[in-house]
Amino acid sequence: MRPSLVALALGLACAGPARAAEEVSTFTLKNGLELVVIEDHRAPVVTQMVWYRIGAADEAPGHSGIAHFFEHLMFQGTDDLAPGEFSATVEAQGGNDNAFTSWDYTAYFQRVAADRLDLMMQMEADRMRDLTLSEQDVATERQVIVEERGQRTDSDPGALLREQMGAAQYLNHPYGRPVIGWLHEITALSRDDALAFYRANYAPNNAIVVVAGDVTPDAALKLAETHYGPLEPSASITPRARPSEPPHLSERRIVLQDERVSEPYVVRSYLATERNPGDQRKAAALTLLAELLGGNPTTSVFARELQFNRGVATWSAAFYDGTSVDPATFGVYVMPVPDVALADAEAALDAVIDGFLKDGVDPEELARIKTQVRASTIYGRDNAEGLANMYGQALAVGLTVKDVQDWPDILQSVTEEEIMAAATEVFDKRRAVTGWLQTPAPVKEAKE
Amino acid sequence: MRPSLVALALGLACAGPARAAEEVSTFTLKNGLELVVIEDHRAPVVTQMVWYRIGAADEAPGHSGIAHFFEHLMFQGTDDLAPGEFSATVEAQGGNDNAFTSWDYTAYFQRVAADRLDLMMQMEADRMRDLTLSEQDVATERQVIVEERGQRTDSDPGALLREQMGAAQYLNHPYGRPVIGWLHEITALSRDDALAFYRANYAPNNAIVVVAGDVTPDAALKLAETHYGPLEPSASITPRARPSEPPHLSERRIVLQDERVSEPYVVRSYLATERNPGDQRKAAALTLLAELLGGNPTTSVFARELQFNRGVATWSAAFYDGTSVDPATFGVYVMPVPDVALADAEAALDAVIDGFLKDGVDPEELARIKTQVRASTIYGRDNAEGLANMYGQALAVGLTVKDVQDWPDILQSVTEEEIMAAATEVFDKRRAVTGWLQTPAPVKEAKE
Repeated sequence: MRPSLVALALGLACAGPARAAEEVSTFTLKNGLELVVIEDHRAPVVTQMVWYRIGAADEAPGHSGIAHFFEHLMFQGTDDLAPGEFSATVEAQGGNDNAFTSWDYTAYFQRVAADRLDLMMQMEADRMRDLTLSEQDVATERQVIVEERGQRTDSDPGALLREQMGAAQYLNHPYGRPVIGWLHEITALSRDDALAFYRANYAPNNAIVVVAGDVTPDAALKLAETHYGPLEPSASITPRARPSEPPHLSERRIVLQDERVSEPYVVRSYLATERNPGDQRKAAALTLLAELLGGNPTTSVFARELQFNRGVATWSAAFYDGTSVDPATFGVYVMPVPDVALADAEAALDAVIDGFLKDGVDPEELARIKTQVRASTIYGRDNAEGLANMYGQALAVGLTVKDVQDWPDILQSVTEEEIMAAATEVFDKRRAVTGWLQTPAPVKEAKE
Repeated sequence: MRPSLVALALGLACAGPARAAEEVSTFTLKNGLELVVIEDHRAPVVTQMVWYRIGAADEAPGHSGIAHFFEHLMFQGTDDLAPGEFSATVEAQGGNDNAFTSWDYTAYFQRVAADRLDLMMQMEADRMRDLTLSEQDVATERQVIVEERGQRTDSDPGALLREQMGAAQYLNHPYGRPVIGWLHEITALSRDDALAFYRANYAPNNAIVVVAGDVTPDAALKLAETHYGPLEPSASITPRARPSEPPHLSERRIVLQDERVSEPYVVRSYLATERNPGDQRKAAALTLLAELLGGNPTTSVFARELQFNRGVATWSAAFYDGTSVDPATFGVYVMPVPDVALADAEAALDAVIDGFLKDGVDPEELARIKTQVRASTIYGRDNAEGLANMYGQALAVGLTVKDVQDWPDILQSVTEEEIMAAATEVFDKRRAVTGWLQTPAPVKEAKE
């Protein structure tokens, strides 16, 4: 065990209201497990999150969905716990627990009274290496996931469009596959696949344990050494090496027609740079750009221009989240008013983007956005769960504690010029996928 | 060694002109190598082809291009031959040799005087397991391939469009990657990658040796046992298990704009079924469909309708080749006359396809096409090289000798109804990618 960064304070030079300064300590156990402790004694509760650096983009070809599948299977039994006993125990202790999977990570969390951390660590350490899976467990859970996919994706035309667009967005990188998996591959996942995936990827040297709340670093470290310390590392953990994108030379366009569509819309995603360790300014500029263009349903550039000035849209938005291992996407949306065709709504959207690229950032608007961003950053830090999530996610994608702590100041220091440079770079249709969601017999849409 | 099918005769019941009936013998050596001997004593020459069941679709993610890269490296030295000596020897013997790579296979061939088969087998057996590669060999050949890519792909807007369309056509299957590889992955291929790929995939149990020409099966077998018999099989050869496609829910559209485009055109590819062992009728129907629609530059349906009746096109075509392991594509093209916009050319193409789906097959036209197909089948069998290629390709994608020999009769027996059923199934835009190739500032194209 080596304490690498004990009680790293925040407090970088920055004018403006003070930010919440959390105490963050990090340790690495001998078996490779990283422990992050965020002290927060405002309430006698603690959140434990275990982040595994394994997600849908790390799956072997043909095994899409196995990372998410495994998130479900982790609630089966171990040598010490019966299936379902994990969550039942958390609940019996008055806590709650859950888990989620992304392209880059799979995370498990429990929020409990502070004195139950010992038990939570004991149980997480137990299922990190000692899960037992019967054929029946796997078959049952596979059916649960098939139904989950049916509800979340296959019955939702918007989700289906996003899925088809994702596959068209990435020409080579595995972010093009859906986290939940392609149905025909989910149904083919076997117990053997699951156990091989588990043994290779669920291990202390692939895990980050984040503990946030009413606990001292020393106490958390002692518990971690007790419970996680004895676990054997996996020999299969290597640095992530995923296929990357070739040049994108031309926009891809997709029209998804579905009887169930009630409100047609246009969505476009552009390939966009992600946050990188020590190099977050461009991602910060894109974050502010999304806020400026579409972060607010009534005052943003899109809302003002598309909804109020031009009257073509009932709703518009822009979206960007650069907290990922590899290049992310920048999304824009416009939902036209009933008598406006998708083609016209898209043309208006393009005109507004072009206008923005010409006119630049309104300094007053940027100042207002920065104030909002600062406030939401503070709010986001205002509870132990939010902090655990923020640090865990960042560390799971390869960022550092310092990157997390620098991020608010970087956001505040981004200039108008940086935002316009980021906008000019990102709004390149050659790297974009444009999707239309509509009913099979559109009334007003021109033949494309 | 077990002779599995010696001198299987053709001659299935079929009215019409006699087909050339080649004598085909197949053997499997103890180490797994398949030998196919096609006797053809019309000329004192012999063609040897060695087909490896390894192609671009079998590459590990991130290593695109390695199958083709290896095709080049196979002309480096072995323990017995200096780099370049292989081809120099073939040439010195008055023969010629070459190689090619596809998604499903990599093939090497030599055409020589019949009494040189011994030497050819000796050399092919030598490089099957005993290739030696220096860092310098690999670096030099990598640069050759980078330049090849520059010439064949990056300097050709049509090739770039095909490449971007391929990536959009396949949502999950590796046919979406270019055979030559993405440039950034080619440049990263190392000697270690190459050697690992070689050791795993270049082995007698992954090879089909086709010998066609002036040789008897017994003589060829004896030579094969002498040269290939002693080679060790690879333990890494497993049945192909590639990720397959999820449902395609919506057409993808791509516009590639490039200054170098002199003649804009519209191309569309539809996902289409492939030839399968014992199940080739649908592929045969698609083959005839492509001939009917666009096989002839002046008399096909597309040419008649688009070039002559409507006068919108200078050129049109349809293309299908189902000789592949996994689903192939059916392609249609239209190149408009100078004053017709791509949108209008595409609309005309769609109208012609719709008309064909409504009107059905002209029986006289089908009869004429079948006669042409029969003739070209006979011509294709009229030389040993063509036969070696036909059998080798089919066996490399998992078809059998019987499938190859049944194919001409299946083509002749396909009905109008089967063609229309295949057309109705394949012309589903949800499984299609439509590409426009144009200059950056088109004069007549409407804003899309």
